[in-house]
Amino acid sequence: MGIIVVGTVALDDVKTPFGEARDALGGSATYFSLAASFFTDVAIVAVVGQDFPPGHLKYLEERGIDTSAVSILDGETFRWSGEYGYDLNERETLETRLNVLEKFDPKIPERLSNTELVFLANIDPMLQLSVLDQVENPRLTACDTMNFWIEGKRVELLEMMSRVDIMVLNDSECRELAGEPNLIKAARKIREMGGPDSIIVKKGEHGALLFTGAKVFSAPAYPLESVFDPTGAGDSFAGGFMGYLAKSGETGESAVRQAVMYGTVMASYCVEQFSVERMSSLTWDEIKKRYEELKELTRF
Amino acid sequence: MGIIVVGTVALDDVKTPFGEARDALGGSATYFSLAASFFTDVAIVAVVGQDFPPGHLKYLEERGIDTSAVSILDGETFRWSGEYGYDLNERETLETRLNVLEKFDPKIPERLSNTELVFLANIDPMLQLSVLDQVENPRLTACDTMNFWIEGKRVELLEMMSRVDIMVLNDSECRELAGEPNLIKAARKIREMGGPDSIIVKKGEHGALLFTGAKVFSAPAYPLESVFDPTGAGDSFAGGFMGYLAKSGETGESAVRQAVMYGTVMASYCVEQFSVERMSSLTWDEIKKRYEELKELTRF
Repeated sequence: MGIIVVGTVALDDVKTPFGEARDALGGSATYFSLAASFFTDVAIVAVVGQDFPPGHLKYLEERGIDTSAVSILDGETFRWSGEYGYDLNERETLETRLNVLEKFDPKIPERLSNTELVFLANIDPMLQLSVLDQVENPRLTACDTMNFWIEGKRVELLEMMSRVDIMVLNDSECRELAGEPNLIKAARKIREMGGPDSIIVKKGEHGALLFTGAKVFSAPAYPLESVFDPTGAGDSFAGGFMGYLAKSGETGESAVRQAVMYGTVMASYCVEQFSVERMSSLTWDEIKKRYEELKELTRF
Repeated sequence: MGIIVVGTVALDDVKTPFGEARDALGGSATYFSLAASFFTDVAIVAVVGQDFPPGHLKYLEERGIDTSAVSILDGETFRWSGEYGYDLNERETLETRLNVLEKFDPKIPERLSNTELVFLANIDPMLQLSVLDQVENPRLTACDTMNFWIEGKRVELLEMMSRVDIMVLNDSECRELAGEPNLIKAARKIREMGGPDSIIVKKGEHGALLFTGAKVFSAPAYPLESVFDPTGAGDSFAGGFMGYLAKSGETGESAVRQAVMYGTVMASYCVEQFSVERMSSLTWDEIKKRYEELKELTRF
């Protein structure tokens, strides 16, 4: 069992109406692995620069995350800075400095190449394809992407999509990729374009939709009164989702629905504090409690 | 048992990307009563002009709706014309001609004054208050409103809200009324302002939230591939909601949740064709089928 995640480990500057954080630990692989670590073994394949605080790597290791495939290269760590207004669904990217990410050439170590679950977080689809080439018959693969690749690397993205089992993307990405405003039609079009049978569309405060074959599952969001920092919500969702599938050992419709709800739980906790702070104090009992609350929230 | 609804009966001109309808039967009381008529007896209190086609009233009567309290006044019927773009969540009102609605002074006939359920559709809160004064201890009252009254008749609206059991409004109205972007906080604020304990916030394609006491129920929308004309969706929701409560004879948490889902079913059918067309062909078996599909849609 276990998961490898390929993505970014970053230093983030984040500003929200409630405060700001500088040089905070961030990145898709970071949030994903922290969320997944509550459920299963997880290894990160990523790159950081010489400036990356060793304490951050130590922190991830203390959470039981395998960081041995995180390369430390000459240069600076990938940096993202962004700002959220009062509508926390919308964010403005102030700056993206790729730094060492430009030199990223993911190598899956031999001992991780037969890991059962593989998550390709949001990076260049060329790199996502390279990872798929290096893993040996994984039981389940899933990917994320973003508008930048939909617009700039469409051919590579379509090839990558055709080789994964599950695609996780947000509503605007889904609409843009399919060129179709209606999400139900858009999901069908993505399949017709060669995408996977299972597609998860994240809708922020409106929950998520899971499309599997002809079936649709509508997942509520957890009703939060205070969102402090939405950064990492999508990656925490993916981490909870894949983590639960790894833990359960199942990949049927029923397990996938439950996994979506565990993803929802992890995303809801992630946004309660800045950066990875809430993940650091989170307990398994809290995860179970919120999962049960989500059951009650939708019961009729 | 049974319901009286006070609201508008209108002639609508509607344009959507898929076609247009002129002089179509519309209005909040029309959509509400058609939806509710599948569940219970319903009587409309409204006003139309001399130009109102008698065939429209006959049509409502054939659906079993009591139109005896619809006054026919000198002048023209209330007219609304609007246009929807490809994002069917947003509509532009092209013209509103109040016509006879300006002279509307709702009178509840003696024999209807002890009807058990009362729905105050979106009209001037002064008129909604007048109706509340004329009914004798109804078992359940609910209201709708809109931005026009939130901005223009706030004092009267607040008084009316304090006298009903359930408030049904859409997400932007909820935010505006409370002056709070977060819907969970906004619902609490509306209560603190004297509003009812039960508040339903409709979110269009994202479903609805029901707040009752400290509890929240998250209702999914029915996933529709084609929406032809969203006009009347909110009133059809309210009609299905109140209709089910009348039919079940219950008003507890469990019945109210089920009622929200029947409201969702009625709204989802309403938007499939122009004006009231889909309501005309709808069957009880179709209603039950979609209700069961919504159960399956949220099961995990």
